[in-house]
Amino acid sequence: MVPRYQTPEMAALWSEENRYRMWALVEAYALEAWEALGQVPRGLAARLLQTLEEKPLTEAFAQRVAEIEETTRHDLVAFTRALVEWTGDEEVGRYLHLGLTSSDIVDTAQNALLVRALDLILEALKGVQEALKALALRYKHTPAIARTHGVHAEPTSFGLRFLSFYAAFLRDEERLQRARETMGVAMLSGSVGNYAHVPPEVEAHVAKRLGLKVEPVSTQVVPRDRHAEVLAALAILGGNLERVAVELRHLQRTEVLEAQEPFREGQTGSSSMPHKKNPVGLENLTGMARLLRGYLHPALENIALWHERDISHSSVERVILPDATTALHYALRRLKGILEGLKVFEENLQRNLDLTRGLVYSQQVLNALIAEGLPRERAYALVQRNALRSWEEEKSFLELLEADPENPLKGERLRALFDPRAFLRHVDAIYARFGL
Amino acid sequence: MVPRYQTPEMAALWSEENRYRMWALVEAYALEAWEALGQVPRGLAARLLQTLEEKPLTEAFAQRVAEIEETTRHDLVAFTRALVEWTGDEEVGRYLHLGLTSSDIVDTAQNALLVRALDLILEALKGVQEALKALALRYKHTPAIARTHGVHAEPTSFGLRFLSFYAAFLRDEERLQRARETMGVAMLSGSVGNYAHVPPEVEAHVAKRLGLKVEPVSTQVVPRDRHAEVLAALAILGGNLERVAVELRHLQRTEVLEAQEPFREGQTGSSSMPHKKNPVGLENLTGMARLLRGYLHPALENIALWHERDISHSSVERVILPDATTALHYALRRLKGILEGLKVFEENLQRNLDLTRGLVYSQQVLNALIAEGLPRERAYALVQRNALRSWEEEKSFLELLEADPENPLKGERLRALFDPRAFLRHVDAIYARFGL
Amino acid sequence: MVPRYQTPEMAALWSEENRYRMWALVEAYALEAWEALGQVPRGLAARLLQTLEEKPLTEAFAQRVAEIEETTRHDLVAFTRALVEWTGDEEVGRYLHLGLTSSDIVDTAQNALLVRALDLILEALKGVQEALKALALRYKHTPAIARTHGVHAEPTSFGLRFLSFYAAFLRDEERLQRARETMGVAMLSGSVGNYAHVPPEVEAHVAKRLGLKVEPVSTQVVPRDRHAEVLAALAILGGNLERVAVELRHLQRTEVLEAQEPFREGQTGSSSMPHKKNPVGLENLTGMARLLRGYLHPALENIALWHERDISHSSVERVILPDATTALHYALRRLKGILEGLKVFEENLQRNLDLTRGLVYSQQVLNALIAEGLPRERAYALVQRNALRSWEEEKSFLELLEADPENPLKGERLRALFDPRAFLRHVDAIYARFGL
Amino acid sequence: MVPRYQTPEMAALWSEENRYRMWALVEAYALEAWEALGQVPRGLAARLLQTLEEKPLTEAFAQRVAEIEETTRHDLVAFTRALVEWTGDEEVGRYLHLGLTSSDIVDTAQNALLVRALDLILEALKGVQEALKALALRYKHTPAIARTHGVHAEPTSFGLRFLSFYAAFLRDEERLQRARETMGVAMLSGSVGNYAHVPPEVEAHVAKRLGLKVEPVSTQVVPRDRHAEVLAALAILGGNLERVAVELRHLQRTEVLEAQEPFREGQTGSSSMPHKKNPVGLENLTGMARLLRGYLHPALENIALWHERDISHSSVERVILPDATTALHYALRRLKGILEGLKVFEENLQRNLDLTRGLVYSQQVLNALIAEGLPRERAYALVQRNALRSWEEEKSFLELLEADPENPLKGERLRALFDPRAFLRHVDAIYARFGL
Repeated sequence: MVPRYQTPEMAALWSEENRYRMWALVEAYALEAWEALGQVPRGLAARLLQTLEEKPLTEAFAQRVAEIEETTRHDLVAFTRALVEWTGDEEVGRYLHLGLTSSDIVDTAQNALLVRALDLILEALKGVQEALKALALRYKHTPAIARTHGVHAEPTSFGLRFLSFYAAFLRDEERLQRARETMGVAMLSGSVGNYAHVPPEVEAHVAKRLGLKVEPVSTQVVPRDRHAEVLAALAILGGNLERVAVELRHLQRTEVLEAQEPFREGQTGSSSMPHKKNPVGLENLTGMARLLRGYLHPALENIALWHERDISHSSVERVILPDATTALHYALRRLKGILEGLKVFEENLQRNLDLTRGLVYSQQVLNALIAEGLPRERAYALVQRNALRSWEEEKSFLELLEADPENPLKGERLRALFDPRAFLRHVDAIYARFGL
Repeated sequence: MVPRYQTPEMAALWSEENRYRMWALVEAYALEAWEALGQVPRGLAARLLQTLEEKPLTEAFAQRVAEIEETTRHDLVAFTRALVEWTGDEEVGRYLHLGLTSSDIVDTAQNALLVRALDLILEALKGVQEALKALALRYKHTPAIARTHGVHAEPTSFGLRFLSFYAAFLRDEERLQRARETMGVAMLSGSVGNYAHVPPEVEAHVAKRLGLKVEPVSTQVVPRDRHAEVLAALAILGGNLERVAVELRHLQRTEVLEAQEPFREGQTGSSSMPHKKNPVGLENLTGMARLLRGYLHPALENIALWHERDISHSSVERVILPDATTALHYALRRLKGILEGLKVFEENLQRNLDLTRGLVYSQQVLNALIAEGLPRERAYALVQRNALRSWEEEKSFLELLEADPENPLKGERLRALFDPRAFLRHVDAIYARFGL
Repeated sequence: MVPRYQTPEMAALWSEENRYRMWALVEAYALEAWEALGQVPRGLAARLLQTLEEKPLTEAFAQRVAEIEETTRHDLVAFTRALVEWTGDEEVGRYLHLGLTSSDIVDTAQNALLVRALDLILEALKGVQEALKALALRYKHTPAIARTHGVHAEPTSFGLRFLSFYAAFLRDEERLQRARETMGVAMLSGSVGNYAHVPPEVEAHVAKRLGLKVEPVSTQVVPRDRHAEVLAALAILGGNLERVAVELRHLQRTEVLEAQEPFREGQTGSSSMPHKKNPVGLENLTGMARLLRGYLHPALENIALWHERDISHSSVERVILPDATTALHYALRRLKGILEGLKVFEENLQRNLDLTRGLVYSQQVLNALIAEGLPRERAYALVQRNALRSWEEEKSFLELLEADPENPLKGERLRALFDPRAFLRHVDAIYARFGL
Repeated sequence: MVPRYQTPEMAALWSEENRYRMWALVEAYALEAWEALGQVPRGLAARLLQTLEEKPLTEAFAQRVAEIEETTRHDLVAFTRALVEWTGDEEVGRYLHLGLTSSDIVDTAQNALLVRALDLILEALKGVQEALKALALRYKHTPAIARTHGVHAEPTSFGLRFLSFYAAFLRDEERLQRARETMGVAMLSGSVGNYAHVPPEVEAHVAKRLGLKVEPVSTQVVPRDRHAEVLAALAILGGNLERVAVELRHLQRTEVLEAQEPFREGQTGSSSMPHKKNPVGLENLTGMARLLRGYLHPALENIALWHERDISHSSVERVILPDATTALHYALRRLKGILEGLKVFEENLQRNLDLTRGLVYSQQVLNALIAEGLPRERAYALVQRNALRSWEEEKSFLELLEADPENPLKGERLRALFDPRAFLRHVDAIYARFGL
């Protein structure tokens, strides 16, 4: 991912040196298992782990691996050579990688990293959920116009939209948790997945040490529908991010101006055009959602590898796993900031409610007329006639109704129908479904 | 979906008349709820349901809706008018659709249909799982060559690949079950999702009658990340279908010919080229997987609707929901047939195992030499030298080793290393993870 | 494609019977070529063509093919048998399909149909272009506010957006024309593309008869990057359709209401909410664009067929070629109708121009002050101070400037700066680039 | 793009400093135009260009821009401030960016860079074309088995597949050239595309200086269907790359082994398994093709920006333009190397031709028997009976025919039918279509 959209945590997580650190851990845990099986002298793994702690793998190590790989053209071989060099521990070198195949290390380590990436995303998601919950609660009883097809429909709670987003992100959280579980498997099953040179006990031990479960049946690699599920969860979450972004971009339109993303001090807008505060952060998030959708497709195509594996998935994953998780982490962070600083212009909420001069209450009036005893057809004709006049002559619907001699509802009883709060009477019940 | 890829069940499920049948049910159940609330005269719903049973909605009904829609340009209005005509029940007509908005009916009914479509898919998936389990068990102890990068690697169990596919489809089953649960919601929350004209009790009743849960917060529509999750589950399952198809297509190559999809009596192959039995069914499945991936993307783009809804998702869903579920149902049925009739040529499994004249046992020999006490370097050199000669001179690796004076392992002890069954010793343990 | 989105022309074009008609033509033209080569008795092709004219292939024929295919599992074999039955011409039957392989017929016919489908699309596109040109011309000199990020920017010509769309569709026309040329190839090169059983002369003749060029090198099939180029052109055109739709949907928002898609007589909107005219046609087009993007991906995956061909592309193309071209044809037709009936509310254009009380002219004022001799910093400060006050106190920017003692520009000279037509002075030059 | 898949040229082209260099050029050329119009003192542009030459923008400059952007949150403003700092030329600073809007610079510069990226790709493509042409010519008359559905079909020229790939890449070259032309536009039309503050002459001059054409009608930005066309061309080219890769991966399978990608000295394969040379380069290319398809979709979604622009496309393009062009450049380079070093095992071509014991000549025999005067049915029966026996009893088809008393064709005349060269007789004609 381009530096602009990297978060420090994701940059660290996906750095070459951190990837190698994870490889080294998998190798060390495998050694532990071999020691327990009596196939490797006791103490080697502990020594390796201690060396790694004292002399952590740095960028210099990553460069050394790259150098060796220039010749070997094989990343895992280059890594083990470099590791022996780095630790200077020939004895560890003798047993390192015993019975294993490259994918045992690479896939298991990648899964472990991906699980951690998902944890970062889940944490960032939590922040967005909290911000949405706060907005939902703050504006729970604030009337606002609801729009369908971009056209005014009926009054509703301004907060309800945030509750709806909150609910969507709860579903995303579930999808991510399940994807995390799907992804959280370790595999050390040897070159074709049948444990020919490494018994299942090694895998079980490494899995436990990494907090993962065991892949119950592998080929040379972990099956790639697992990764596809992760990318699908990210892309769907991206879709929900976009949904929030599109809503708020709409609300920030000059004509609507019900809300505005925060504008930082010193930020260059147009000082000669003070209305020109642009929702650039939200537009950025819209773009991020597109990227996330784009990363899903290659992951789906990665599933059908040839026989026990081909390595076509590898180049794809080197790119999309860091890029997708990083873009999403960045986007969630950014959205949280926008939501927390969101300006809401309550006077504009009211102005927009009134924009159609009361027409949005026509259904209320109709129902009241029928309740009053008017035959449905007459009630309908009465409402329709006045609504049309209100719209065409730009007059108050309420005043027209007040003046209509056929209308039995007048004065306070009529005015009461033009109260947006009537539309909010079940809002508490909706919130209660979320314990709010 | 084109008729060629329709299954009768899916064709019936997604027919216009069945869609209207479901709309009518939702309307009828809503009437029941209103009756219980005392807002509608008792007995109307029962009358409607009985009429629907006695005079089920047919294609003629669908045509009548289409006619009316020509004028109204609104499908739900056309439907209710047609329904009143069809039943001839003016009183029902007076209360039909009370307090509801079109989406309450359309979305709830569509969800109910989609859940039923997923049930059909789950049932078809079960058939594929059973067929794979049978193959996995039948060939559990049959040695075959495993291939990585398309190149021979080491011996393995021929059945293990089927177990791996079986495991993948178990994950798909889980994904589908969760998607089914995600999709299984009813919503009758009125024109902007705040129950302004219909109390939550109506929704709760309809949900219960349809075996669905209640959508906890809606706009005018059910949020579309739910649908995206369904399409993602279908696309991932498509990826696994393709994985099986690609494996079997490879096995059917003339040079490999370890397996062959069934060839129906009377099927036109080339009678003058009896070897020319083509895996056309499996190739067809590969194409289906592409279609399923293609249908996912529009579903992801559908998530970010404007405000309380825009109707851009509707045209997309009219196409992709029937098309994706139908294509997958067809594909699963077809795969089941192929797997059940799969021909496996065991003599060719053996022939291919032997194709590299024993080289696939080199790792076994190396390990045995080291166990025998040879220093690793000398053991390696010995194996390497003979392996290279075997490859280049096309000679038996075993015979070359037998003749190599430096080799301490001879006769029966050497021959024992060339036994593919050694690679199968953990296969039982793998199967046991699946209770097999 | 679902019937709702079929146009009669596309439905006829992609019908089974029309596909078979095209197959029959390819077979007949091939016979003509063989006759010219002296390998087939003279007159057979003419007889076949005449029979086809007298007794055109109908739905009944298509059903007969389907019946035979039940047994043969091979569509081309079923077709030729059915054709001999249909014509009752045993002698034609003896020579039919001489030297050819199924793909020679199927691919060539499909290309010919696809070219015709593109012609229908090009024709429909022409209609959209004309409607856009008319709008561009009608509103060439009508001032309107331009918006960036959804926020008011500066005045511009209302017509310019239509010119921009027109220009985009000119590019689409070029892309379609090139895709048509790419697709317009005939191939009759035998079972593996080397003309082993049919000389290139047959191909050349058939190509000429169909108005196509010769595929210069084929395998068993025409290479699929050709089809991908077509689908890409359709998807990009879809993107431009969506761009128009999104623009107009924005303009139809209640708060903006500068334009409105036509609302048909009798169409059910909400009569009690006369403002509630929804851009459902434009929303529908937005969905269509998503479908078109979705159809592209499978076409891209179809390129990498195995060796001389595998048939995985076939199921994909049976669906996406008719569906994509039909959806697009429908969408273009619908867009044309919307554009031709588009209501533009000129009074609202003016109202929106004035919405920010003159702030959109601030750049004009600044430039004039500098031209007047004020140092840039002072000019800027003056503008900024009054702009901010105008925004915050909701006062006329013009009046504030008039009242500002530091401002040297007053009266008529000041008012002249608040003329939107100043922003339109290069509009003629832009139009002139298109000969308008 | 991750460093592993960067080429030095693309890394340089897309570096931050090079992007800023291009921005500075656009600003300088715009100054030139203003000078010519007499609106800016003569000599400023020349001074700026000279400074840029003497003190080229470096990484340090890019960092300085980033620092300033931290405050301004606006990249172009940060850039111009940094540029004035860097040059220390206050007078240039006073006129820099006169009348322009950020997009004038950013879009025009990006287009210029993208055109250069396409030039790099075209150059790399040329290398691949040459390598394919060489292979096509080298193996023009080398017989090999052609395969459909992965199953042996008939003999063909081994070189013909390379000619087919070559032809595909010629089409890609055309698509790239057209995309380059589509992309090659400069736009300096001010904040809403109507040249309100900058006359078209400035745009015309800058376009000329950059070797671009003028965007005939813009909004605030260049329309994004142009970019989508570029990404589509890259994705289709990726599909053709994958097609080559899949073909060669198939040929490298152990059972087939007709070709092998080059294996570098020192490269770590398995020395104890000398047959284990894996087509990892080709598999890598397969993955690259998936990435390229993935990058297309966001580009298609970028087309429908809101009104005169929203900035959602920007984050997408910051990622996909460098990533897609870089991945493709890398892939083309790598493919060229593989093709140039491709090992072809001609003895295996022959072995595979013979694998089905002559059955692939059955069509030849059939035709010869009919030419000999046998009724078609009898000829067919004769061929079929012997073909089936050959297949089932693993006997030579030729010998069986020789022994069949009903067969009139014997000895030399029969043997002549088993000559693969008969299938190659039109190969020269095919090559001639390409001047080869």
